[in-house]
Amino acid sequence: ARQSVGEVIYGAGKTAEQIAAIAQALVEGGQPSVLATRLDAEKGRRAVRLMDAAGLPSEYDDVSRTLVAGASSAPVSDACAPLVVVACGGTSDLPVAEEAARTAAFLGDRVTRLYDVGVAGIHRLLASEDVLSQATVVIAIAGMEGALASVIGGLVSCPVIGVPTSVGYGASFGGVSALLSMLNSCASGVSVVNIDNGFGAAYLAHLICQVPTRRYEG
Amino acid sequence: ARQSVGEVIYGAGKTAEQIAAIAQALVEGGQPSVLATRLDAEKGRRAVRLMDAAGLPSEYDDVSRTLVAGASSAPVSDACAPLVVVACGGTSDLPVAEEAARTAAFLGDRVTRLYDVGVAGIHRLLASEDVLSQATVVIAIAGMEGALASVIGGLVSCPVIGVPTSVGYGASFGGVSALLSMLNSCASGVSVVNIDNGFGAAYLAHLICQVPTRRYEG
Amino acid sequence: ARQSVGEVIYGAGKTAEQIAAIAQALVEGGQPSVLATRLDAEKGRRAVRLMDAAGLPSEYDDVSRTLVAGASSAPVSDACAPLVVVACGGTSDLPVAEEAARTAAFLGDRVTRLYDVGVAGIHRLLASEDVLSQATVVIAIAGMEGALASVIGGLVSCPVIGVPTSVGYGASFGGVSALLSMLNSCASGVSVVNIDNGFGAAYLAHLICQVPTRRYEG
Amino acid sequence: ARQSVGEVIYGAGKTAEQIAAIAQALVEGGQPSVLATRLDAEKGRRAVRLMDAAGLPSEYDDVSRTLVAGASSAPVSDACAPLVVVACGGTSDLPVAEEAARTAAFLGDRVTRLYDVGVAGIHRLLASEDVLSQATVVIAIAGMEGALASVIGGLVSCPVIGVPTSVGYGASFGGVSALLSMLNSCASGVSVVNIDNGFGAAYLAHLICQVPTRRYEG
Amino acid sequence: ARQSVGEVIYGAGKTAEQIAAIAQALVEGGQPSVLATRLDAEKGRRAVRLMDAAGLPSEYDDVSRTLVAGASSAPVSDACAPLVVVACGGTSDLPVAEEAARTAAFLGDRVTRLYDVGVAGIHRLLASEDVLSQATVVIAIAGMEGALASVIGGLVSCPVIGVPTSVGYGASFGGVSALLSMLNSCASGVSVVNIDNGFGAAYLAHLICQVPTRRYEG
Amino acid sequence: ARQSVGEVIYGAGKTAEQIAAIAQALVEGGQPSVLATRLDAEKGRRAVRLMDAAGLPSEYDDVSRTLVAGASSAPVSDACAPLVVVACGGTSDLPVAEEAARTAAFLGDRVTRLYDVGVAGIHRLLASEDVLSQATVVIAIAGMEGALASVIGGLVSCPVIGVPTSVGYGASFGGVSALLSMLNSCASGVSVVNIDNGFGAAYLAHLICQVPTRRYEG
Amino acid sequence: ARQSVGEVIYGAGKTAEQIAAIAQALVEGGQPSVLATRLDAEKGRRAVRLMDAAGLPSEYDDVSRTLVAGASSAPVSDACAPLVVVACGGTSDLPVAEEAARTAAFLGDRVTRLYDVGVAGIHRLLASEDVLSQATVVIAIAGMEGALASVIGGLVSCPVIGVPTSVGYGASFGGVSALLSMLNSCASGVSVVNIDNGFGAAYLAHLICQVPTRRYEG
Amino acid sequence: ARQSVGEVIYGAGKTAEQIAAIAQALVEGGQPSVLATRLDAEKGRRAVRLMDAAGLPSEYDDVSRTLVAGASSAPVSDACAPLVVVACGGTSDLPVAEEAARTAAFLGDRVTRLYDVGVAGIHRLLASEDVLSQATVVIAIAGMEGALASVIGGLVSCPVIGVPTSVGYGASFGGVSALLSMLNSCASGVSVVNIDNGFGAAYLAHLICQVPTRRYEG
Ligand SMILES: Nc1ncnc2c1ncn2[C@@H]1O[C@H](COP(=O)(O)O)[C@@H](O)[C@H]1O
Ligand SMILES: Nc1ncnc2c1ncn2[C@@H]1O[C@H](COP(=O)(O)O)[C@@H](O)[C@H]1O
Ligand SMILES: Nc1ncnc2c1ncn2[C@@H]1O[C@H](COP(=O)(O)O)[C@@H](O)[C@H]1O
Ligand SMILES: Nc1ncnc2c1ncn2[C@@H]1O[C@H](COP(=O)(O)O)[C@@H](O)[C@H]1O
Ligand SMILES: [Mg+2]
Ligand SMILES: [Mg+2]
Ligand SMILES: [Mg+2]
Ligand SMILES: [Mg+2]
Ligand SMILES: [Mg+2]
Ligand SMILES: [Mg+2]
Ligand SMILES: [Mg+2]
Ligand SMILES: [Mg+2]
Repeated sequence: ARQSVGEVIYGAGKTAEQIAAIAQALVEGGQPSVLATRLDAEKGRRAVRLMDAAGLPSEYDDVSRTLVAGASSAPVSDACAPLVVVACGGTSDLPVAEEAARTAAFLGDRVTRLYDVGVAGIHRLLASEDVLSQATVVIAIAGMEGALASVIGGLVSCPVIGVPTSVGYGASFGGVSALLSMLNSCASGVSVVNIDNGFGAAYLAHLICQVPTRRYEG
Repeated sequence: ARQSVGEVIYGAGKTAEQIAAIAQALVEGGQPSVLATRLDAEKGRRAVRLMDAAGLPSEYDDVSRTLVAGASSAPVSDACAPLVVVACGGTSDLPVAEEAARTAAFLGDRVTRLYDVGVAGIHRLLASEDVLSQATVVIAIAGMEGALASVIGGLVSCPVIGVPTSVGYGASFGGVSALLSMLNSCASGVSVVNIDNGFGAAYLAHLICQVPTRRYEG
Repeated sequence: ARQSVGEVIYGAGKTAEQIAAIAQALVEGGQPSVLATRLDAEKGRRAVRLMDAAGLPSEYDDVSRTLVAGASSAPVSDACAPLVVVACGGTSDLPVAEEAARTAAFLGDRVTRLYDVGVAGIHRLLASEDVLSQATVVIAIAGMEGALASVIGGLVSCPVIGVPTSVGYGASFGGVSALLSMLNSCASGVSVVNIDNGFGAAYLAHLICQVPTRRYEG
Repeated sequence: ARQSVGEVIYGAGKTAEQIAAIAQALVEGGQPSVLATRLDAEKGRRAVRLMDAAGLPSEYDDVSRTLVAGASSAPVSDACAPLVVVACGGTSDLPVAEEAARTAAFLGDRVTRLYDVGVAGIHRLLASEDVLSQATVVIAIAGMEGALASVIGGLVSCPVIGVPTSVGYGASFGGVSALLSMLNSCASGVSVVNIDNGFGAAYLAHLICQVPTRRYEG
Repeated sequence: ARQSVGEVIYGAGKTAEQIAAIAQALVEGGQPSVLATRLDAEKGRRAVRLMDAAGLPSEYDDVSRTLVAGASSAPVSDACAPLVVVACGGTSDLPVAEEAARTAAFLGDRVTRLYDVGVAGIHRLLASEDVLSQATVVIAIAGMEGALASVIGGLVSCPVIGVPTSVGYGASFGGVSALLSMLNSCASGVSVVNIDNGFGAAYLAHLICQVPTRRYEG
Repeated sequence: ARQSVGEVIYGAGKTAEQIAAIAQALVEGGQPSVLATRLDAEKGRRAVRLMDAAGLPSEYDDVSRTLVAGASSAPVSDACAPLVVVACGGTSDLPVAEEAARTAAFLGDRVTRLYDVGVAGIHRLLASEDVLSQATVVIAIAGMEGALASVIGGLVSCPVIGVPTSVGYGASFGGVSALLSMLNSCASGVSVVNIDNGFGAAYLAHLICQVPTRRYEG
Repeated sequence: ARQSVGEVIYGAGKTAEQIAAIAQALVEGGQPSVLATRLDAEKGRRAVRLMDAAGLPSEYDDVSRTLVAGASSAPVSDACAPLVVVACGGTSDLPVAEEAARTAAFLGDRVTRLYDVGVAGIHRLLASEDVLSQATVVIAIAGMEGALASVIGGLVSCPVIGVPTSVGYGASFGGVSALLSMLNSCASGVSVVNIDNGFGAAYLAHLICQVPTRRYEG
Repeated sequence: ARQSVGEVIYGAGKTAEQIAAIAQALVEGGQPSVLATRLDAEKGRRAVRLMDAAGLPSEYDDVSRTLVAGASSAPVSDACAPLVVVACGGTSDLPVAEEAARTAAFLGDRVTRLYDVGVAGIHRLLASEDVLSQATVVIAIAGMEGALASVIGGLVSCPVIGVPTSVGYGASFGGVSALLSMLNSCASGVSVVNIDNGFGAAYLAHLICQVPTRRYEG
């Protein structure tokens, strides 16, 4: 697992040109690969073309709206490596879930996706209980009523990071409903990051996965 | 089951004297028994003493803060009668849950209580699945993150009435967190009444239970 | 009346291609017809063309932004069937009202529309009192001050499902004003679903209409 | 009708001693009578005793929490005088309704009270339609869902002043629900004053009643 | 002054075709002229062309986004007629102010505009004191901090109708800041209508102006 | 004028014993006098007695709820000294205004109080225009609609510090209404401190008064 | 370090009698010691007396409002044990900070307190940088502007758990200001628990500290 | 330094034509140069072309969205002139920071920019401590958690003007999070202007810089 965390580019307020330039500078500065988040499709594709022209291979992902430039890392297969489980209830949470999952993979963590485990179909979630029980940390992603974090928190004894999503309509208020739900979780061991912040959840999950490394290996 | 719904006294802004007087007038007017809600212990006990002195038997219940004056009705034992299941997660929701359960009983409905089925301990809830499957209507009561309504909504195929409670601290905002959660339920068949409104939920549950009666019997 | 509820497609986050594919799979899987909600006109028309090309007949409705694919069902004419009354005050609530009415029809329920009964013209509402009195359940749809649910709740003795709409300007706050109004209804027997959730109201109405069926017929 | 409006004492932040002193100064300065608002029972009774000791007759009213010192005016009996109708739905709005009604009477206006006309019992309101039709201005007072202002606004063709009250529980948020309801009234001719501001509504009603006086008589 | 109020078309959710058709029906039904509000420029111009083609003269106004079809009325010149003063602080409030002023003129009221009297330049407002003193009713329109209603309320002894506008940025929250300001006015005689509701303010102003007519003339 | 600012004790969460001890330590440490804020009457009087017993003279002020221990400073009489004008509208804002005025005096600034200049009586404010024009900085204190900061901001060309107060009822929301008003001031040169923060305003005013000292004198 | 987490009693809604009984049952059931949180001084002292009478030693702490019954554990002195650093800015956050610190100690974790490191005195915080650098996890507790979590998050490379506190006045809104601050932290690796939830933060910190144990030792 | 402040054009609601015309009128009226704020790129470029055609030189700046017409002033180089330091954390705050910096320069003030001093990298901020110590006033600009104002407030002893920015996502709520943070600053000497109001902050900074001029020079 990667020890020190590379620079990540927050793409929201930047042009494709700026992103390509920063990525290239980082790679030239020795960082093997670079992650950029929050790029819409047009910006992402343009950045890929620009880096291509400059000889830097990169890949853009539509769902997570992320881009990885440089050496792409193979998924971690070591079954003893710490495990980040990314769970969500359905298709509308996928962009945030994939932002989290791809960030975790970029940071060198082993990742398992549980993407159809909404609380309105609790039996599907329970069918995944043994995957959950192997997690070092779970990222629970949910919009609307945001109950997933509490239900998972009750099932596992590892830390759970809740990510409210802005998905929904009516009284979901852009994620506030899910955010409040998660903050008020009746399960212990649950904390929360900002609405839609899949990146931040994965970053924190990585720090938690690093706890043994920092203590036992250095 | 009682066909027409008797008058109910909302006790919050009234004195014990006023409540006792209204109850007596209703009973004299032919209503066999009278329910009063939202009486604190002091007011409730004083009202009981006043009615006692006037020859009207009554009983006050501490937990639900309700009082029933007049003939107390035996619990419905007919296993074919429509069934109201009142579910909640723990001790702090009991006042609202009991307001609902006692109102339903007063209205003549068969009632089953499921009082330790919070979502952070999902296996306890699942252990009650067959009680839930017999419900005509479920009243799901929860504070904090309010996820119970969604989880139950996913388990049953009857109407679910969510009652957010004002229990909690911090960002629960007097029930708003649970209210938003329930309004945004990802399970279909769930609707919501006002925060702490156990009475209103039971009243609505009664109307739903009456649907066959109104259609087949009268 | 249809006993078990078919799958419904929530169209908001899906492409016309995805919707057409899911619909076809459901029909091939044996569901006689499929409802899709929340499709804007462009997406709806494109989905119709795609299914047409694949030999699946379908119809898109502009007002409700819904699409029904497969066998279209004749309106229920049996005057003894449970009755869903859909009431609203005026033209701006029509999209939500029609989402509710068409969902109810799709689910096999008898539907009556009362579409010009706003509370500022109370006499028009009162002129419909006998339609209201035959309802098994009323869906009361209103934006702005949302008083319709309370007024109807006072007139009928069946369940009333309030649907706040996001119609309005100024301090209507995208439906919050109507939502709060309905939650605070001074009439008993009223519950509320999420802002603009015509589908959810009709689904719940269907469950309520099914109560006798479940008890007496199966 | 009294032409110029006398000074009114807002009692909330003042002691009984201060209120008595101000009242006496005003009467000595030539104002025949003085109104003080927002005095709880203890403060009100103490102020009465203090003024009594000083030879100034006064009367305190428990419900409205107002006090009138000096010459008490007979109710206006002239059936041609402008008429202020004060309407509300029930007992919990009485303090605000009486603050409005007593202020209007103090200002010299003819007042009719309609105190049992909540929207959940619309037929009682309609039974008062001819009183409403004689109003120069209606003050519509309501908590919870605040629909009264809209319904009355649709019935009358004179100005309607809505007063939201802080009565309620749960999602009534201290009057916000009723306030939003009234601001979003779908009836024209309705405006709103601050939550619980019975005094302010009556003051404005008085100014509206004075319009002909100012134009035709002076 | 026009006695009975003609129908007004709220144009926000309607097409130019619908508006033209309604207007024509009203004129054919005997209403001499028709007002339509909330039409953007494109819709307004299209409606004018449509009515033109159908032989109904009409005029669209860019600033107020209103349209008047049929006989245009001359401004009221009778110096004894009731007077509506429309006051605002600057250019950004003009759309709402003109909606109010043109509605008042359409309803047959005498109108004076005071359009540069913001509270940050109090001397300009004071220079208009004698216009204000002749008002039967003042409509005070303001966004941002909304203080205009209070300051004018302190200067005049007639009713003041506050209209908060959604103009502003940052913490003005689409008019909420001005709305709260006006509701909390420390001047008596001020009431409030919904954010941006110039039409509603003028309609209410008209009812107030009609008070003498209703009492003395009929 | 005092150059460096002494330590100030925020008394809200501390006991009289703790306050007395801290004050004594500061005086023993060389600070000639000490200010403590946010002490209710009981705590304030007790602290005075405790310091008295220990030989440290002190004075508690009821209105501002502040206490000054040690050498009391004479008011600044030098007409050339920078001037802090503290303005408010009426009696209910006095606690905050006096907290500001006494803090400014404690810090060694010249202070003028304008305490009856509410915007609903604009002529009283204008009568003080020449006092305002001599201000180095104005502290404008207001609850309810909070318009005072804007009106003064338009009159003066020095910095204005707005202090919203929590005074009010109904939709004033504990000072939020006044806070939003002031933040949205249409007059330039106005900034805002926290609700009821008289101390903070005076501290900032002092820093502004010190600008010349820091530049010209040292 | 304790491997499995003992039961904790949430004391807020329970009587001293109930708390004492639950504690005794847990100890009799084999749990060496029991923690109870959220007991005010009166309830805490009464519970201590009750357990004393029953032969169960216990200790109540005023600041944190917690009670520990049974065997009290010595502080962890092993410098290799995982370290929980509890940081806050000042006296008003102490109750929450001590709830966190004592919970962590109860759970068997090594704890270091940094209690005078508010962001307005950034140099004091920086003087503790090497303590911070040894932390396995930091609990950052702050009210008012809540900036501590961000600043610490920028200094350390371990997980930071933010706990907003309800301390403050004016626009701190019972902890909402600090909560939003922490959720929006510009430092990565920061997550948030509910307002005032010192217990929850310590519980989560414990789970994070257990990561190596679960992986390497068990 | 410029003594009296020239007129500034708020460009948000105006056309390029209107802006060009006002600017020309002001220059013809004797104002040497004119600032216009809140012009998007298209409007800004068009205004430049229009003024160019009319012989008035002007320059539009993309980042700050401001335009200066007329004589451009050289930056103030006098090291004794009052100094406005404009500080922010990163690229997303640049538009507001540049609006502030360019307004300050336009008003004739000496300006230093500190644009990479976010609180998550506190050491970069501390490296600028001596620039900060020379400031007459600091403008601290921040979105998200808005902690910069507090941290700087703790470092300097001059006034600090906080400008919350609307930058962010999730629970930043368009600047509300940063606004609350700054209002609740635990550092004294900090006040706040409206969200994104870089102009207003610079204007106020200018008034503060003028304090010595007004007192010693005129
Ligand atoms: N308008 C609607 N609002 C809320 N839920 C809906 C709506 N339309 C469909 N649904 C629900 O969404 C489910 C399908 O979601 P999906 O799998 O995303 O297509 C259906 O079974 C319904 O329960
Ligand atoms: N209930 C009330 N609500 C609002 N304003 C009131 C009320 N009662 C009196 N007032 C106003 O307060 C003024 C007196 O305020 P004061 O000088 O503080 O006694 C009166 O002239 C009224 O305008
Ligand atoms: N301060 C606290 N805040 C939130 N949860 C707590 C707190 N203290 C204890 N708990 C939780 O509450 C549970 C006990 O709840 P109860 O069964 O009501 O005593 C414990 O296992 C904890 O998970
Ligand atoms: N960005 C800004 N934010 C707030 N007020 C501004 C801004 N720019 C200019 N102003 C103010 O708006 C006034 C001009 O407004 P106007 O007359 O509409 O052009 C100026 O004198 C400034 O006080
Ligand atoms: Mg757990
Ligand atoms: Mg279900
Ligand atoms: Mg009913
Ligand atoms: Mg009307
Ligand atoms: Mg007035
Ligand atoms: Mg000024
Ligand atoms: Mg970090
Ligand atoms: Mg400082």
